[in-house]
Amino acid sequence: MTTPANSPKFRVVILGGGFGGLECCRRLADRPDLEITLVDRQNHHLFQPLLYQVATAGLAAPDIAQPTRAILSDQDNAQVLMEEVQSIDLAQNSVSTPDRKLPYDYLVIALGVQTGYFGHDEWAQYCIGLKSLADATTLRANILHAFEKAEAAETPSDSSRLLTFVVVGGGPTGVEIAGSLAELSKKALRGNFRNIDPSKTKIILLEANSRLLHTFPEHLGEYAKAKLGEMGVEVMLNARVEEVGEGFVRVPSVTIDTDNIIWAAGVEAPPLTRTLGCELDHAGRIKVQNDLSIPGQSNAFAIGDISHLVDANNMAVPALAPAAIQMGRHVSTIILNETRLMRSGHSDRSLPRLRGDFKYRDKGTMATIGRSAAVASTLGTTMTGLTAWVMWLLIHLILLVGLRNRLVVLLNWIFAYVRYNPGARIITSTRPEPPPSRHDHTY
Amino acid sequence: MTTPANSPKFRVVILGGGFGGLECCRRLADRPDLEITLVDRQNHHLFQPLLYQVATAGLAAPDIAQPTRAILSDQDNAQVLMEEVQSIDLAQNSVSTPDRKLPYDYLVIALGVQTGYFGHDEWAQYCIGLKSLADATTLRANILHAFEKAEAAETPSDSSRLLTFVVVGGGPTGVEIAGSLAELSKKALRGNFRNIDPSKTKIILLEANSRLLHTFPEHLGEYAKAKLGEMGVEVMLNARVEEVGEGFVRVPSVTIDTDNIIWAAGVEAPPLTRTLGCELDHAGRIKVQNDLSIPGQSNAFAIGDISHLVDANNMAVPALAPAAIQMGRHVSTIILNETRLMRSGHSDRSLPRLRGDFKYRDKGTMATIGRSAAVASTLGTTMTGLTAWVMWLLIHLILLVGLRNRLVVLLNWIFAYVRYNPGARIITSTRPEPPPSRHDHTY
Repeated sequence: MTTPANSPKFRVVILGGGFGGLECCRRLADRPDLEITLVDRQNHHLFQPLLYQVATAGLAAPDIAQPTRAILSDQDNAQVLMEEVQSIDLAQNSVSTPDRKLPYDYLVIALGVQTGYFGHDEWAQYCIGLKSLADATTLRANILHAFEKAEAAETPSDSSRLLTFVVVGGGPTGVEIAGSLAELSKKALRGNFRNIDPSKTKIILLEANSRLLHTFPEHLGEYAKAKLGEMGVEVMLNARVEEVGEGFVRVPSVTIDTDNIIWAAGVEAPPLTRTLGCELDHAGRIKVQNDLSIPGQSNAFAIGDISHLVDANNMAVPALAPAAIQMGRHVSTIILNETRLMRSGHSDRSLPRLRGDFKYRDKGTMATIGRSAAVASTLGTTMTGLTAWVMWLLIHLILLVGLRNRLVVLLNWIFAYVRYNPGARIITSTRPEPPPSRHDHTY
Repeated sequence: MTTPANSPKFRVVILGGGFGGLECCRRLADRPDLEITLVDRQNHHLFQPLLYQVATAGLAAPDIAQPTRAILSDQDNAQVLMEEVQSIDLAQNSVSTPDRKLPYDYLVIALGVQTGYFGHDEWAQYCIGLKSLADATTLRANILHAFEKAEAAETPSDSSRLLTFVVVGGGPTGVEIAGSLAELSKKALRGNFRNIDPSKTKIILLEANSRLLHTFPEHLGEYAKAKLGEMGVEVMLNARVEEVGEGFVRVPSVTIDTDNIIWAAGVEAPPLTRTLGCELDHAGRIKVQNDLSIPGQSNAFAIGDISHLVDANNMAVPALAPAAIQMGRHVSTIILNETRLMRSGHSDRSLPRLRGDFKYRDKGTMATIGRSAAVASTLGTTMTGLTAWVMWLLIHLILLVGLRNRLVVLLNWIFAYVRYNPGARIITSTRPEPPPSRHDHTY
């Protein structure tokens, strides 16, 4: 890396305005000698932890998103480009979008991941993943349409296939979707139909492992399974999906007839990472060094879900918002320190030695299951039930960006709690949409 | 009409769950001897008066809609079909959807209207109308994309074409869209961009007549024009659109280069009315008799925007929600009375004599222009400014269905007022959508 000779400023290019990219960008705000460009194909920062509530009609899409431009409107050293990243040339220090080339002095890749099908890309056409607001509103429309079509169905077998929802993947997202589907069908839609009984809806949660929530302590997975069972969700463990097709999912023991397959089983890095020429893990994530830089590229970093790191504490950094935020902070510190030293005349040769190793500070993980039921694992202890649920609600409200969104979400939660009545059961298009192309919406 | 011989119940089919159809349906709730089917291609009742606020990013789509099924969940004598009406056979007393045939004893046509282009259907591809939530979210995405594309534009002329919004039609909808576009660009987006100045956005309101709001008293139109002018909207009167094409609108005096044409100039009845064999007005609306029945069809009624009537007071009934509601109520009274008499053995020959004529009770009209500015004409007096605006806010909050929606909308309005910061500036798809097909979303 060289100090920028022709440019009077250090050019920082950040790809992706998720938790990691945005945190990094905001931490660089006070330095007029930086020229930051944040590139994102969406116009908003998305609060992904609540995305499943948009998909299951509890919240409206704008409630969990903020325009990236609005968030950064006061940050004079940053500009936002709503464009798609087309290629990254690490050797030439530049990024290309369809319309322009962006040279950089520092690059931060924070593009996140997309829904992955373990090499079975052909399954994508039968499933809906959940990574973007477009995914969520499509899923919402499809779920609501399934009930409408079942109400109008001519044979019991049509109706039963329409009212069978299969959620693939028993991690936090799968558990949360299955739980809120159960509440939607068994509580909120009660009395809405004349020909079908929505409480008879079959919700099946498939997990390839021998337990749910396998990144959580074991008894929390058992609690989740029991709780989901009470709510009417059929949990199938050791049920690795063998085939997905039009109207069915096959697992070792059984073929399930269903028109609704929700895929929460896997993610993979966007295909772009394969063009970088650096080492990737099995899901295409960039294996970064302890300082989060890409090996051999001291001025290019990968953070958040798109990165793969076993950190200096020998802990695999999980794909969670807090990890992405911490990584964004770590990289911002490196950029701030190094550019300050370079400005004051230091040779850049000594810089790498100044870099600290990234260490993930694990504040815990949590997942909500349903009304008054959640699990949390934090600071060496675990919690379940109402306590965990209230904690979950509070933490998510606090982390949500924007007071308006916080209040609207709180209001929606209160109504949903008091009346079992999620407020966004609206289909905005007139017919079921096909699943969005995976590459359309995911970074 | 005959009393239903084979059916033990009177079958009432209501087409459309807007203000008129829903009111009619709910008024029939207490009669177990009625079997009501409400058909709508949307799954929700839409509060159209606030649709422009979804289009201009002030509200989220679910905030102004309620699932029709939820509204009617307690009404045991009614079922909802989410289907498209394909044909109506008045002679055979039946309605067809793609999946079924619905025989009726009473029919209520309340399908509303769709955007109309005065015979220039080819203009539709260049314009966006505003009749459904799909229209509104598409318009929102296109408006926000226009700013994004302008920020990235390479030439000043591209940028200026992208930042020119033409609103066609100076009625309440056109005035409301133009006003909120002005607030969006000149206030809310301030500071969000680096290459463009959104406050330089050109907003042009075209009106073919010699004044705005020509259904209101004259000085209210003048007030609206002056107020819009202060807000930076260019109002062009006597500007009938002569041609619309890719990137331009031509009016007698000038051709305007623009990528954003919002059509609020006209409506027409859905094409279905032309198959009924009854007399229609120039916009395809059904000319009904004073009791709101279709001439020659004493058991089939048309209400709301799809009907055309000069009422018993010699007043042309306007295409407004209150008129549709009153009409729905009028028809429900006829159905309640007649079926009760028929049940008790009266000959149906005497029934038409029992029918009262519909008389529209004009409670006034209002339109909002912007922050603290509205016009209202009610009970012989007129109002402008803050008083009218507060009245507008209160009335719309009260009329909105559902406490949750009322509170969320109120919250959004407070934030928009205090912070000039509409809360839904979110693009859920990744690229600008083409205008929805007119026939896709309109009834």
